[in-house]
Amino acid sequence: MKGSVTRVGFAPLRDFIGASLRRLGLPDEDALTVASLMAEADLQGSDGHGVIRLPPYARRIRAGGIKLRPEIRVLQERPGMALLDGDNAMGHLVMARAAELAVDKAHTAGVAWVGARMSNHAGPASLYARKVLAHDMIGMYFAVGNANHLPPWGGMDMLLSTNPIAVAVPAGRQTPIVLDMATTVAAYGKVKAKAQRGETMPEGWMIDREGRPLTDPRCAEEGFLLPIGGYKGYGLALVFGLLAGTLNGAAMGKDVIDFNHDDASATNTGQAIVAIDVAAFGDLQAFKDRVDVLIDDLRQSSRMPHVDRIWLPGEQSHARRVEYERDGIPIATALLSSLDQLADELRVKRLE
Amino acid sequence: MKGSVTRVGFAPLRDFIGASLRRLGLPDEDALTVASLMAEADLQGSDGHGVIRLPPYARRIRAGGIKLRPEIRVLQERPGMALLDGDNAMGHLVMARAAELAVDKAHTAGVAWVGARMSNHAGPASLYARKVLAHDMIGMYFAVGNANHLPPWGGMDMLLSTNPIAVAVPAGRQTPIVLDMATTVAAYGKVKAKAQRGETMPEGWMIDREGRPLTDPRCAEEGFLLPIGGYKGYGLALVFGLLAGTLNGAAMGKDVIDFNHDDASATNTGQAIVAIDVAAFGDLQAFKDRVDVLIDDLRQSSRMPHVDRIWLPGEQSHARRVEYERDGIPIATALLSSLDQLADELRVKRLE
Repeated sequence: MKGSVTRVGFAPLRDFIGASLRRLGLPDEDALTVASLMAEADLQGSDGHGVIRLPPYARRIRAGGIKLRPEIRVLQERPGMALLDGDNAMGHLVMARAAELAVDKAHTAGVAWVGARMSNHAGPASLYARKVLAHDMIGMYFAVGNANHLPPWGGMDMLLSTNPIAVAVPAGRQTPIVLDMATTVAAYGKVKAKAQRGETMPEGWMIDREGRPLTDPRCAEEGFLLPIGGYKGYGLALVFGLLAGTLNGAAMGKDVIDFNHDDASATNTGQAIVAIDVAAFGDLQAFKDRVDVLIDDLRQSSRMPHVDRIWLPGEQSHARRVEYERDGIPIATALLSSLDQLADELRVKRLE
Repeated sequence: MKGSVTRVGFAPLRDFIGASLRRLGLPDEDALTVASLMAEADLQGSDGHGVIRLPPYARRIRAGGIKLRPEIRVLQERPGMALLDGDNAMGHLVMARAAELAVDKAHTAGVAWVGARMSNHAGPASLYARKVLAHDMIGMYFAVGNANHLPPWGGMDMLLSTNPIAVAVPAGRQTPIVLDMATTVAAYGKVKAKAQRGETMPEGWMIDREGRPLTDPRCAEEGFLLPIGGYKGYGLALVFGLLAGTLNGAAMGKDVIDFNHDDASATNTGQAIVAIDVAAFGDLQAFKDRVDVLIDDLRQSSRMPHVDRIWLPGEQSHARRVEYERDGIPIATALLSSLDQLADELRVKRLE
């Protein structure tokens, strides 16, 4: 059974988040940056990574687990890379800075890789991969998740997270291709959203410690997520974690702080963004034309029985963005209650 | 039923391939480079990508589908990237050059991305990702496969290949982590190897056009491969193809030449390699120590029932390499017959 929803506009949602973050102690400009990115997550349908995170962020900030006046700085730098120290800032601030720096460097180097340590949860991977599209660049993003829900293949100790990848590719007249995926069948944020909405999970998302399907999201802590393609998804989660975490001196494996259970310790989250300047490889318009043709060819493929249309990665998010801009962003009643409670605690105006 | 096998040493295998390629018209140095990489593929157990490919390569060379005196050159260059034109050379030559160039550039830029167009099939992805390990770099590799066996998710037109990724990460006292995977449940080379050995495929590798499991590898052309994680594997195959193919002006989608059915047309294969200089991000030894600890932690995880050990990506290839160096590389009887036939045609000494 699906709970009821309220629809809210992007601007009111952003302003509510911003007001809450300011009241929690973030400087005005930082509050606006984080609030805009969080509301954008909801706008594109990444409902496990948007305003649903505000109550846990608030808890973490109040527990001293986030630095409110951080000094985000470049630790290491070469023409094609940089490593940022996020100084335990809100992750959105660190990765917004990382994306900017990657674009700047890619203008000269052609390709630039910016890693971060001492960052925090920053929302959906695609938010940052997308940031480079406006510069006619391809964006890639890797992150170490903030709680381990995945054992190595064949194992039972949850040493890995759902370490996601996002890749955003500019197109011409078509919607950009934006892949954003966890290396598990389902991201843990989706499990939380299911719990929030009182829904059950399909079989295949999680198993319990006996290997049986686990479908009640309220029992998620009694089992673990399944990687895509079995040992292949385990391999992807591992190497993306090495690239986003271990390489940057950020947490990975046993070092990962479970941000669901520890609000005070610095998570030392690791993320990485890559910007690829398409023009460095040849004519930009010719590239966009090739992408457009490819998208058309894929979309026009003959279809399996009962399939209405072929989707390109990012197209459903785009459709949601169009719908939500028009009709408002749906907020589940249970989530709205917890946001109202937070608003009252912070003495900011409730979301409406 | 498993066919019988003959064991051959690495050096005799390399020399047999080299002699065959020289007889086919490759210059001595190029023949040695290609033969060494092909034999190395077999040595690490990538039996779908080693000497099994010699007969089709020979067919392609004799049909004029490969340029024997190519001029591999840099088309585009910036501090953090280069684009090579492979001039329709054997792919091994193009990617060996790409790996060298990526390492050179990463020494200065920290991270370097080298793409190639007008290349050809170059063997297993991990061969090239591994090349950078000796320089204490992390290697990544993407490629567009040389035949489309994968439809978009929900579709039936085979517009995508099994576009693989490889990531190689140096360790300290441990074996390096080397992930090498197709974005489909099985690579097409594994299907061919099953056919060659007269074995059936497990369910889940392929389906036919009615959506039923396809397990006879001799009927592979009547169906298509399944992507890992459903739409996620489709998304990965697509974006890796965009990065390795479309970005470089190489074949992707409908443009991909099926090298099983067309020996004469240039395939315009696209590949990309990324070299990441670990020292640019911080202390090299500290990184290796972190990787070693992570490997230990994963390996020591408690295990599911009936699981004997936890494997790290690349560890099984490494184990095979050790075994095959000691006992020789197993060559299936059916493959050996086809190699004998080729040897007789080329008037080179048979493999023994």
